[in-house]
Amino acid sequence: MQRDYLSLSREELLAEKESLQKKYEEYKAMSLSLNMTRGIPCREQVDLSEDMLHVIDSGDKCISGKTDIRNYGMLDGIPEMKQIFADLLHTLPENVICGGNSSLNMMYDTIARAMIFGTAPGFTPWGKQKEIKFLCPVPGYDRHFAITEIFGIQMIPIDTTDSGPDMDQVREYVENDPTVKGIWCVPKYSNPSGIVYSNDTVRAFAALKPAAKDFRIFWDNAYAVHDLYDEVKVLDIFAECRKRGVENRVYEFASTSKISYPGSGVACLVADDEDILWAKKLIAFQTIGPDKINQKRHAAFFKDANGIIEHMKKHAEILRPKFEAVVDTLEAELGDLGICQFTKPRGGYFISFDLLVGSARHALNLTHDAGVSMTPAGSTFPYHNDPYDRNIRIAPTFPSVADLKTAATLFSICVRLAAVERLLGLN
Amino acid sequence: MQRDYLSLSREELLAEKESLQKKYEEYKAMSLSLNMTRGIPCREQVDLSEDMLHVIDSGDKCISGKTDIRNYGMLDGIPEMKQIFADLLHTLPENVICGGNSSLNMMYDTIARAMIFGTAPGFTPWGKQKEIKFLCPVPGYDRHFAITEIFGIQMIPIDTTDSGPDMDQVREYVENDPTVKGIWCVPKYSNPSGIVYSNDTVRAFAALKPAAKDFRIFWDNAYAVHDLYDEVKVLDIFAECRKRGVENRVYEFASTSKISYPGSGVACLVADDEDILWAKKLIAFQTIGPDKINQKRHAAFFKDANGIIEHMKKHAEILRPKFEAVVDTLEAELGDLGICQFTKPRGGYFISFDLLVGSARHALNLTHDAGVSMTPAGSTFPYHNDPYDRNIRIAPTFPSVADLKTAATLFSICVRLAAVERLLGLN
Repeated sequence: MQRDYLSLSREELLAEKESLQKKYEEYKAMSLSLNMTRGIPCREQVDLSEDMLHVIDSGDKCISGKTDIRNYGMLDGIPEMKQIFADLLHTLPENVICGGNSSLNMMYDTIARAMIFGTAPGFTPWGKQKEIKFLCPVPGYDRHFAITEIFGIQMIPIDTTDSGPDMDQVREYVENDPTVKGIWCVPKYSNPSGIVYSNDTVRAFAALKPAAKDFRIFWDNAYAVHDLYDEVKVLDIFAECRKRGVENRVYEFASTSKISYPGSGVACLVADDEDILWAKKLIAFQTIGPDKINQKRHAAFFKDANGIIEHMKKHAEILRPKFEAVVDTLEAELGDLGICQFTKPRGGYFISFDLLVGSARHALNLTHDAGVSMTPAGSTFPYHNDPYDRNIRIAPTFPSVADLKTAATLFSICVRLAAVERLLGLN
Repeated sequence: MQRDYLSLSREELLAEKESLQKKYEEYKAMSLSLNMTRGIPCREQVDLSEDMLHVIDSGDKCISGKTDIRNYGMLDGIPEMKQIFADLLHTLPENVICGGNSSLNMMYDTIARAMIFGTAPGFTPWGKQKEIKFLCPVPGYDRHFAITEIFGIQMIPIDTTDSGPDMDQVREYVENDPTVKGIWCVPKYSNPSGIVYSNDTVRAFAALKPAAKDFRIFWDNAYAVHDLYDEVKVLDIFAECRKRGVENRVYEFASTSKISYPGSGVACLVADDEDILWAKKLIAFQTIGPDKINQKRHAAFFKDANGIIEHMKKHAEILRPKFEAVVDTLEAELGDLGICQFTKPRGGYFISFDLLVGSARHALNLTHDAGVSMTPAGSTFPYHNDPYDRNIRIAPTFPSVADLKTAATLFSICVRLAAVERLLGLN
């Protein structure tokens, strides 16, 4: 049992600093080179899909119904893949558009379409409206924020609670400000907090009465089936909307990037009938269709939604020890010190770590100088601006368990060092 | 030898009409169902790439340099595929961005970026300028025109000569009107005319002095290696520009859609350094990277640019008899009648067919009613508006030679019937 740093005297802090400095130099001397910046599957995970590479090995397997999928067509994807996503996401195939390899690309394109053509026929394009805003629950996903920023959409940070975005704040903005057009949501195992939206949160989203008629929820279900332990269920937002007579409010996104191959997976957009119709109408100008052979590979390899669920258990076997190695190390090294809080997610790809206010950047600089790269401070906030300089995203999926233990121990030393220096008024 | 329709008397025309009507009814009774609407490779063509389906059949083949391409990254594609496109298109790999499966998508995205963010840093986005225009050499590709139309870009038709767009018209617009921002070009085997830009035409493009600083040539090199007979060379537009000190004027597009698989090929954008840098900077917001495994399949199957050239000879073997069947039939049925002109392309995917003014729509309706679908009249013009109702695009790649002969004979009867009725003042 270690003592709470906030109860230490100045002398004790100085002694602790000296001891930490020594440990830190030892790590530095190890010339580590570890990368924990992004949520990247590890080699063992991509190996799980090995058989997908040759499951479609001849032209006669490239048939969907009566269609030769090696040729042009099928704007919204092959029926088999639409069915799999529909089953996974509890919707109908006709509400699914299977796209290319990147759900991020589908999100970007969905915003681009809203900016240029509007969210529905007859609506003023977002880009032609004077000012538009997105709500951004924080900490959140830097690539979401980057898209909104590049399109010149003003971002408003929203606090996150253990059960999802602070819905009082969300309601206040959405129901009173007609320039608020969207909100970024990662409903299951949020990036980076790992929190899961409660039933009340989902219901509150469905019950919103937006001031803007062209308001949309961007429901990035990136970790829909990425459980580390038991299956966790999030209430179906579309069903909750329907119960309240609400339609065309949600764009849901998902992909197999972290199921099969990052970069060679299949992404999808799910929406209500009119939203899907409008999206298809516009996508028809952009492309003749997605890579259907790759969709067929996925459909043939996984067979059905249950095949994906089973496959994800193998991912969990690989990832669970990694998350636990990091959490246990942080627990052991930092648990009693009163200088940090961190999440112990039951799925997803990240651990969210909060330090003493004003020390995230410094702690990460120390970590980086000792050879361990982590997501830059501020990345989890709009405009890279963490107002408290406190949040760090930890991505434990790529390195080995041994490397993770080393990295987490080093990181703990850096966090302690930054905290001691902060408490001593040195930074 | 048949007699020129324009020399026939009214009586002779009436007799001809009756005889044609009879032949037409015979074809109608055959209940044909043939589709020649789009430029679609046939089954034998896609079969040529059979081995590509299993050339990358294990994870250890998914390596590019030291990178495991099954994972995230490589925004602009794998080096091997960039090299192949660079060699085919006579540029450097660093000037190539390999994207997803669709060059149309890359064109759409390039215009979308120009609309939203401008063609270069500091330039006013096209979408924020009062009025913008594109020059559209006609007849041209309907999907090009559809993209410009959906973005609200005004389209100006430009006449096409045997050596490319009428460069006097092009120069007049580009050099005097600063709202002219772009021009669609298919330099080799134009869609649908099949014409090839002459050296003078390419040089004239390079020598343009655009009134708009953000003018760009959209050089859709869709049929760069799609020769039916000997290799035909088009002068390198980038080299011609460089000779004149002109940079960042051209976006070139190409893809393997009609080399490997339509829908599962690899597309690319080629541009000068600054244009590529700007595109990559913006694409980084849209995606983490393209499907690199599919690029690797292509690189492994074709090996190098020469592998593609050799592969295209097999396509030519399949397509040559098809083009010749149509051309020979049209020649025999219509050659001496003085009622039409058509191209005899040495590559590409189409034959362009011009009828008596005001009879294309009618001829196609007749053809359609007898069970042969062809590209709708007007499709080859901006806003589907063929001012002379004269041009028809023939797509002879998909049907069998036997079916093509039947379809071309029927089509000839319809063309003759429409001409006779036109000459009789009946339509």
